[in-house]
Amino acid sequence: MQNQKRVVIESVKPQINCGEIPIKRVEYEYVNVNADVLVDGHDLIAVAVLFKHENDQKWQEVAMDSLDNDAWHARFCVKRQGYYLYKVQAWVDYALNWQKGIACKMADSQSVSIELLEGVAYVKAISAKATKAEKEYLKKVAKVFSDSKKYEEAITIAKSDKLQSLFRKYPKKQFANNSKTFMVYVDRSKARFSTWYEFFPRSASSKKNTHGTFKDCEKLLPRVAKMGFDTLYFPPVHPIGEVNRKGKNNDTEAQSDDVGSAWGIGSKYGGHKEINPSLGSTEDFKRLIKKAKKLGIEIAMDYALQAAPDHPWVKEHPQWFKWRPDGTVQYAENPPKKYQDILPIYFESKDYKALWEECLGILCYWIDCGIRVFRVDNPHTKPFYFWHWIISEVKKKHPDVIFLAEAFTRPKIMQQLAKQGFSQSYTYFTWRESKQELTDYIEELTQTELREYMRPNFWPNTPDINPFHLQGATQSKYIQRYVLAATLSSNTGIYGPVFEHMISAALEGKEEYLNSEKFQVCNYNWSQENKLTHIITQVNKIRHQNEALQQTNNVKFCTVDNDNLIAFYKWDDAKKNELLIVVNLEGFNKQEGSLQLPLYELGIAEGQQLFLNDLMTNNSYVWNKEWNYVALDPALPFHIFKLKK
Amino acid sequence: MQNQKRVVIESVKPQINCGEIPIKRVEYEYVNVNADVLVDGHDLIAVAVLFKHENDQKWQEVAMDSLDNDAWHARFCVKRQGYYLYKVQAWVDYALNWQKGIACKMADSQSVSIELLEGVAYVKAISAKATKAEKEYLKKVAKVFSDSKKYEEAITIAKSDKLQSLFRKYPKKQFANNSKTFMVYVDRSKARFSTWYEFFPRSASSKKNTHGTFKDCEKLLPRVAKMGFDTLYFPPVHPIGEVNRKGKNNDTEAQSDDVGSAWGIGSKYGGHKEINPSLGSTEDFKRLIKKAKKLGIEIAMDYALQAAPDHPWVKEHPQWFKWRPDGTVQYAENPPKKYQDILPIYFESKDYKALWEECLGILCYWIDCGIRVFRVDNPHTKPFYFWHWIISEVKKKHPDVIFLAEAFTRPKIMQQLAKQGFSQSYTYFTWRESKQELTDYIEELTQTELREYMRPNFWPNTPDINPFHLQGATQSKYIQRYVLAATLSSNTGIYGPVFEHMISAALEGKEEYLNSEKFQVCNYNWSQENKLTHIITQVNKIRHQNEALQQTNNVKFCTVDNDNLIAFYKWDDAKKNELLIVVNLEGFNKQEGSLQLPLYELGIAEGQQLFLNDLMTNNSYVWNKEWNYVALDPALPFHIFKLKK
Repeated sequence: MQNQKRVVIESVKPQINCGEIPIKRVEYEYVNVNADVLVDGHDLIAVAVLFKHENDQKWQEVAMDSLDNDAWHARFCVKRQGYYLYKVQAWVDYALNWQKGIACKMADSQSVSIELLEGVAYVKAISAKATKAEKEYLKKVAKVFSDSKKYEEAITIAKSDKLQSLFRKYPKKQFANNSKTFMVYVDRSKARFSTWYEFFPRSASSKKNTHGTFKDCEKLLPRVAKMGFDTLYFPPVHPIGEVNRKGKNNDTEAQSDDVGSAWGIGSKYGGHKEINPSLGSTEDFKRLIKKAKKLGIEIAMDYALQAAPDHPWVKEHPQWFKWRPDGTVQYAENPPKKYQDILPIYFESKDYKALWEECLGILCYWIDCGIRVFRVDNPHTKPFYFWHWIISEVKKKHPDVIFLAEAFTRPKIMQQLAKQGFSQSYTYFTWRESKQELTDYIEELTQTELREYMRPNFWPNTPDINPFHLQGATQSKYIQRYVLAATLSSNTGIYGPVFEHMISAALEGKEEYLNSEKFQVCNYNWSQENKLTHIITQVNKIRHQNEALQQTNNVKFCTVDNDNLIAFYKWDDAKKNELLIVVNLEGFNKQEGSLQLPLYELGIAEGQQLFLNDLMTNNSYVWNKEWNYVALDPALPFHIFKLKK
Repeated sequence: MQNQKRVVIESVKPQINCGEIPIKRVEYEYVNVNADVLVDGHDLIAVAVLFKHENDQKWQEVAMDSLDNDAWHARFCVKRQGYYLYKVQAWVDYALNWQKGIACKMADSQSVSIELLEGVAYVKAISAKATKAEKEYLKKVAKVFSDSKKYEEAITIAKSDKLQSLFRKYPKKQFANNSKTFMVYVDRSKARFSTWYEFFPRSASSKKNTHGTFKDCEKLLPRVAKMGFDTLYFPPVHPIGEVNRKGKNNDTEAQSDDVGSAWGIGSKYGGHKEINPSLGSTEDFKRLIKKAKKLGIEIAMDYALQAAPDHPWVKEHPQWFKWRPDGTVQYAENPPKKYQDILPIYFESKDYKALWEECLGILCYWIDCGIRVFRVDNPHTKPFYFWHWIISEVKKKHPDVIFLAEAFTRPKIMQQLAKQGFSQSYTYFTWRESKQELTDYIEELTQTELREYMRPNFWPNTPDINPFHLQGATQSKYIQRYVLAATLSSNTGIYGPVFEHMISAALEGKEEYLNSEKFQVCNYNWSQENKLTHIITQVNKIRHQNEALQQTNNVKFCTVDNDNLIAFYKWDDAKKNELLIVVNLEGFNKQEGSLQLPLYELGIAEGQQLFLNDLMTNNSYVWNKEWNYVALDPALPFHIFKLKK
């Protein structure tokens, strides 16, 4: 037989996969909770959100407000890293019902003398938890309610706000019901706001045809810091396999001086816990990490679970690879394609527990060396539940570790990786170009439940993707792509030197770089600074100074009557920092149009003055209409307006 | 540590409240199951729906088909009453992967001799369950694969459909994953298709000013049957309280000859298990039930959990009511309104278990008397969890019992009652009048998840609701309302005599009947048949002959360029019975317009001939365009076209 609970709680949101998947927040972010709460009959109910950090003993409580159609809302702030729990609790509030009934009857001139006698019980019931002064007051109230000669005084007290506030302060939660308990994972703020620069350490040397080292990298740190990047991501820095090593441009025949793909990990020099001797030593790497930290830069490491044929694991743990009937080891393939320089890990191995532990060991090793950010290579080719386990394990000890999922694949696969625990995700931004494409995609990321668990990281390019629209593109197009990435997403990054220097020579008909740094050392003139360098620097500075750009979800697109102009309004949670961004999406010509201000979201009326300050040029404007003229030249194809009402 | 499962199953639909709430079906209805199923990497997966009746030992299995975007679909048929269980199961199919890989490599002219050796294991693995003939074949295949001299024969076999069909027939479900298990409650078909007629037995007499009896009711059965109704619903037939009895028109002062409200249950003659002596005896009632059954009519009883002040429970079980400090019992109220003739049941009573059991006992008692349909009065003023319990208990023994929820209240409350187990629900149809209102409402009922668990029952009127649009309305309006109810919803009903005779005198400014039968005996000329009677009879006949009208969800509204004309296409699951209904929503004038056929849903092309036969007039038409002229006169304000392609 069921119990006597009367209140039904359902549709608690946010709720991902029926609560199996935690939502994500960063420290000091809010969780907006909505729920439908129902009771039979006409009784008043009270509803609250209960929440606590996993390590807390006691739940905190915040009252939910009633909205239309039996919906309720409250929000709470998460202040510490790690898991928070939350649930909705609801109960019929008999004391408030009694008070509401008595007020209705008095308004209808009915006698309430019996009701006053009933009230004695409600008053006594809340007395236990009350303060001393409150106790005395309640004792007096009970006496007055019981005394038929004090009817006038009694009814004044009965309907008083003072009594109501005590009923609310000490609710008697009879037959209270609870929703399922849901989880929030709270990351440090960098999970939501980060600016990445990627280069290959082997190309860090300023000398031509010289293999770069960590010491060369140290020299580049001030440049990266000055440009406003806070995360410096290196492709794998481990020993590179010598067996089946790839040559330049992915050639299966390597020359003797070829350095191979950084992702072909493992050789006689060691595996995932070793440093490629050409880059230096583990000590060099640790020193680099420390020096970077002093400049406000974190080194992000690549975590690529695969092995070159000469990786030490192949001999030490042959059961972690798949062996074929002819005694050879299975290399990576996606028939008919073959990747002979890489052996996939055999996750179906009977020895998988030891394998998983070793994979965890690699992360722990580098965490001990000072790493707190991992860019995970192709996570979508390893089991989802493996990621769930390994990320959870790491976060138990190190809640501040951030994992970026490098999965460019089908939407639900990418979403699933985020659900399993990745802190950030690469996205399709790299291929979203037109106003419609960008609007649809950003609205999908920010206006659906994706916003609760998937944090996009927008990259205009990567070593793997030289998008068609950047091949041979104008400088204006490069500026445009960086500004879009850096203002639409609070997490953004570039494959730096190639982007800055607008290197875009491609393999014919492909979105791949010619002479890709993936397979060779490249030489850059690191001392060179161009217009793009300066604009990136300035945009990064604006990102750091404007909270509206430090989260992705608060965005509202504005109508512009020119498809080559995109405009959007961004704000911080407190609406103290408001920006309007306009970008010319075309790379060659001046674009002009009429922009409709989102008056409702801005909280202003038609005719009200709006002051706009362009944070790039420091030009100022005053608008007082809903529709306003905008024009952008390819030379500086964007506005970032700071708004003042 | 997690296990080695690789496949992720999510978003299984239908799924109500994360599977806490069963969906509903009737016997021989289909359940369409959709799910997102994901795996890492490039491996082929296989997905199935497993289902079984709760009493079955073994699961049945149906393969799911792959749709776009990692979605999968299958359907299964439920054939017996009671609970069915269903879940989605998925696994990586290594044998099929091997076969796909070998085919790709052969197409790329690669040698597959090692792959053939690998194939031996897959062939052997499925041999255990195979038939004798299959076993011999598989033995031969293994031999050929192992024999390098038979390479040509081996590769022919390797990519053969025969081998594939065996892999599919005997899947090796390694590391298979299962979704949560979901539930379907399967009712008998009447839960989905029923036609209700309501009258008060006390008005069944053909003699003026005479209290009707069950014997009088018997005489009316042939009339009800002839009109095509299969469910005859009576307001409560129990003894009516004499204390605080209500007079005519809800007067608080009853005259000595007043019969009282049928819902004021209980008196010295007994309570919920007794029959009002003025109507006859329990034996009379049982005979009526039997006679009705012979005519294809089921008697639906009212289940109203409340008591008159002189209900025997008040003395026998005083703890089931709420007592006030002055020693009086709490009557029903919704402050400042009072209902002195009714005591609400005190569900918060400490003795609630005995109370619940007695409530169940009432249902069981009448079920034993032959009742299988209950119309539940005001279920929204009793706890939701009580309904869940009592309906579940009844259905354990009597899965064929049908409960109609009479809750006219807020949407989520009505939905919640359906979720807790009610088989059918009264709806807002009674107040939905314009084309837009009707379209929006029916689309909400049939195109959202409501379709899975809430079965609407459309009533143009009830003893409680004399809608404004029927007060003084034309006959055409009455016809219109019945046709809409009876064609838009497969469950429909009328408060019969009043509707047929178009009695609509109201309390001023209210949607309540003047001289309501709720408080007095009414006299009807039961032998009278008017145009409305004949049209209702004909429409009911059409409902019985056309499966398209025997379910509610298959409906598609058609565009008509006149807001006074509504048109919709209905079909059965097999699309063997297709109807087009057009209704004039205005009560006074001829309405004409151009109707757009839903060509896509009809599966016809512009220009193709469509034959329409009006089932009311037997007139026939041939249409061969997308847009077609329609006109409806108030005299016969609707078409029910049967379609033939």
